[in-house]
Amino acid sequence: MKPRATPRPRSDFRVFRRISTRWADNDVYGHVNNVTYYGWFDTAVNGFLVEKGLLDPGTSDAIGLVVETGCSYFAPLSFPEDVDLGLVVANLGRTSVRYEIGVFAANAGETAATGHFVHVLVDRIARRPIAVPDNWQAVLETIALRG
Amino acid sequence: MKPRATPRPRSDFRVFRRISTRWADNDVYGHVNNVTYYGWFDTAVNGFLVEKGLLDPGTSDAIGLVVETGCSYFAPLSFPEDVDLGLVVANLGRTSVRYEIGVFAANAGETAATGHFVHVLVDRIARRPIAVPDNWQAVLETIALRG
Amino acid sequence: MKPRATPRPRSDFRVFRRISTRWADNDVYGHVNNVTYYGWFDTAVNGFLVEKGLLDPGTSDAIGLVVETGCSYFAPLSFPEDVDLGLVVANLGRTSVRYEIGVFAANAGETAATGHFVHVLVDRIARRPIAVPDNWQAVLETIALRG
Amino acid sequence: MKPRATPRPRSDFRVFRRISTRWADNDVYGHVNNVTYYGWFDTAVNGFLVEKGLLDPGTSDAIGLVVETGCSYFAPLSFPEDVDLGLVVANLGRTSVRYEIGVFAANAGETAATGHFVHVLVDRIARRPIAVPDNWQAVLETIALRG
Repeated sequence: MKPRATPRPRSDFRVFRRISTRWADNDVYGHVNNVTYYGWFDTAVNGFLVEKGLLDPGTSDAIGLVVETGCSYFAPLSFPEDVDLGLVVANLGRTSVRYEIGVFAANAGETAATGHFVHVLVDRIARRPIAVPDNWQAVLETIALRG
Repeated sequence: MKPRATPRPRSDFRVFRRISTRWADNDVYGHVNNVTYYGWFDTAVNGFLVEKGLLDPGTSDAIGLVVETGCSYFAPLSFPEDVDLGLVVANLGRTSVRYEIGVFAANAGETAATGHFVHVLVDRIARRPIAVPDNWQAVLETIALRG
Repeated sequence: MKPRATPRPRSDFRVFRRISTRWADNDVYGHVNNVTYYGWFDTAVNGFLVEKGLLDPGTSDAIGLVVETGCSYFAPLSFPEDVDLGLVVANLGRTSVRYEIGVFAANAGETAATGHFVHVLVDRIARRPIAVPDNWQAVLETIALRG
Repeated sequence: MKPRATPRPRSDFRVFRRISTRWADNDVYGHVNNVTYYGWFDTAVNGFLVEKGLLDPGTSDAIGLVVETGCSYFAPLSFPEDVDLGLVVANLGRTSVRYEIGVFAANAGETAATGHFVHVLVDRIARRPIAVPDNWQAVLETIALRG
């Protein structure tokens, strides 16, 4: 197996979103279940897109479909602590966007988990890939990896 | 069918908890799914119990098992808006506690949904009902319906 | 508090759906969490409606919005056992349908939990109540309480 | 970005588990949400371990903690269709197990999504890595990649 990923600092991410944990986030072992993190990724990415006015899930012509995700887990988290999700655009392609996402215990300096999330932009009706719209591109560049 | 419940004001509840919504809370119709509210109830009740030092889900002798829940829905909610959960103890029995719970859009004056949630206290190992412990009773009375 | 509900036999229900449990259905106490049951109710009701050709969640003019749900829990269930959901139409109103739902451990004779679920039919666009369509009524009567 | 993964045939997997989809598996775009697949992975892996008598989540000395997961999505799935989860052990390390998992529409020949899932075995109390127990190893080899 390839070497495992390691924790990353807050400075690797460009925008943050606090998420409150829920009772059902913990599984039978008493910590947040691995699946829950992906629900937070969806929330961080789409919450950003909605709040920036790029995405209205019910009406936008352009929507993002997920084609690849992944996560490495370093340290446990538990309800009822809050978590901070850090977001950065690691790659902005012609029709796709790769986000990297850090999950931090509230106020912690290093990630408890790090993931990635790849959206392909498609048009709502045909569900065929489209070029990343100009207004998306402008906003996504504000949270892109610094060169 | 019996007459439906109606929205209730914030003054019917004694303690509040803000919860951030998530992408997956919305269902195919674009609003928070009816099931999600029950996850919030679990979070509001158990979050209160944990933060007051009454419940440690992994180690406490006394735990609460849910024997009855219900919810009436008045108005839709949608990700990414925040919600406030209001909690009141409507009945404190010998071995059980009935909570009533109001779900408010953040800062709204009336409930978007109102529910109830009945815990029977049991001992962790035998899972048999036990009397509500004194320290639970003292705390629960602080959020009980005013006489 | 009013007397609690009691388990009901399979003969109280008119159609059944087997559901496979999932790892995350269990909570920290090692049994299926109370919230999970409501996800099964949604699945049993909407699965029936979709498979009978009444509902296409993405396109139907008539959709069902949930206005009230409730559940009483009698006995624990645990992943990985299968469960059977029994469904009966307890009341067919002008614009609404009240379902009662029994949750059985696979092949058990009595419910581990019993719930109810009230749909108001609305038109997809305006989200205003409409009369239960004739084709819905004809199908729903086939699973109604016997007089 | 590196080239994307491609669909894989059933013959790449060694054991299968049918899972019934649920209403809430679909998100606002009308297809199974990307997060749901990870809940199926947990279910396929842990369901196998429980049913083979290796894991009892409430009592086993050895439990599996997830340190890495990932998924590539090729084709949409939708409630109420059933899905088949295929499982193969791709790497059996001293203290860890890497599973690869295929998600198939019921009876389809190629994966709609393919993922991986890495468990580190730990002892329940200390949560420190332990060698894969002999009885786990014997069972896991029965579903290992053929040499």
